[in-house]
Amino acid sequence: MATEQTAPVSSPLSADAATAGTAPLSATRRTRLNRLKDRGRGDRADLYAVLDAGLICHLGVVVDGTPVVIPTGYGRAGDTLYLHGSTGATWVRAQGEVCVTVTHLDGIVLARSIFHHSINYRSAMIYGTPRLVTDPEEKLLGLRAVSEQLAPGRWDATRQPTKKELAQTAVVALSLEEASVKVRQGPPNDDEEDLALPVWAGVLPLVTSWGTPIPDPKLAPGIPVPAHVAER
Amino acid sequence: MATEQTAPVSSPLSADAATAGTAPLSATRRTRLNRLKDRGRGDRADLYAVLDAGLICHLGVVVDGTPVVIPTGYGRAGDTLYLHGSTGATWVRAQGEVCVTVTHLDGIVLARSIFHHSINYRSAMIYGTPRLVTDPEEKLLGLRAVSEQLAPGRWDATRQPTKKELAQTAVVALSLEEASVKVRQGPPNDDEEDLALPVWAGVLPLVTSWGTPIPDPKLAPGIPVPAHVAER
Repeated sequence: MATEQTAPVSSPLSADAATAGTAPLSATRRTRLNRLKDRGRGDRADLYAVLDAGLICHLGVVVDGTPVVIPTGYGRAGDTLYLHGSTGATWVRAQGEVCVTVTHLDGIVLARSIFHHSINYRSAMIYGTPRLVTDPEEKLLGLRAVSEQLAPGRWDATRQPTKKELAQTAVVALSLEEASVKVRQGPPNDDEEDLALPVWAGVLPLVTSWGTPIPDPKLAPGIPVPAHVAER
Repeated sequence: MATEQTAPVSSPLSADAATAGTAPLSATRRTRLNRLKDRGRGDRADLYAVLDAGLICHLGVVVDGTPVVIPTGYGRAGDTLYLHGSTGATWVRAQGEVCVTVTHLDGIVLARSIFHHSINYRSAMIYGTPRLVTDPEEKLLGLRAVSEQLAPGRWDATRQPTKKELAQTAVVALSLEEASVKVRQGPPNDDEEDLALPVWAGVLPLVTSWGTPIPDPKLAPGIPVPAHVAER
């Protein structure tokens, strides 16, 4: 099986264009590609596309020298990624750099040899040291970004956070400055000499879709499914 | 938004039952629950169920003191998780403990307050120090486990790895001894005083399914889609 999914890739450095949507991504040592360079996507717009299409990320932190990988929601506002957590959560209290990875699994690549089996995917990796958000306005902005990423339309449709709820919630900001995007799409890349094998090859796509909304059993009668849910 | 997704949970320690399917999971300091204890699942069978239903994991390693989170395939054989990668991949050469997380996103929980919005999910976290597999038989067993997890039926249907391909591929084994499982399902948990709000609440399920197989443009004529692909 091809072992192609491990090297994050990036584009040439362009220090002064880091905030524009079409600006290249960073190229630090750890975001520079090691292998399979054709999978790199170098525009900031590619990063936004992967992030904006996602629902959860996997957040990596180091706790007592050990990596911890946590699935959690996130939101983006410009070139800042926002995460939230309980003020008592281990990862919120952890120090140092983090890695946030967002992955879309688009299909399984079925080759004629075991070795060339692969995955069609889009993924983004972001490295940085998170900043605890203390400004009340930015905290609401960050929470709104996380909320709208998972559940667009809910922020304006539901009860706003109380002071007590806000006090229980930590919001951290992570710059998108150091990031890489990697994409694999398309058919298998079999060896030339394997093409004559009598083996079916191709891609089995993976499709993610929304099901029918399930009302809360405690829902009061007469409240219809709102457009922001029904039309998703 | 409720910040409920960060504390892995586990069951009481049972040292002598660690390999049986119904044995409790471990409870080390880092797999013991900190919060939201009702989300813990303590049986080894729960761990197997989450792992066996997945396609990719997110592997966390520490490289130069920084966490790196890599999406990659995996496979299970008994109480061992197998991962594979290029022998040149950074994570393969990294030392020390890793964390492997497998997450199924089942739906978005839409509450009457922003704070109680949540995610329905099943997740597993495994901690351990991977062992590089050097025994040729176990290496094939591990590769087969990874292959069958992503693409069941392909191992016997396609060309086997050559010596050269095997030499380019590293297989690592990770014990499932130290693991935790966390599950959230069901409707929102709104505050009692919010139930009267005129806000629709419930769950928007997320459904993942297989699309129609896409033949490789280079596929020779007359090779039908095999049952292991068509019936998935």
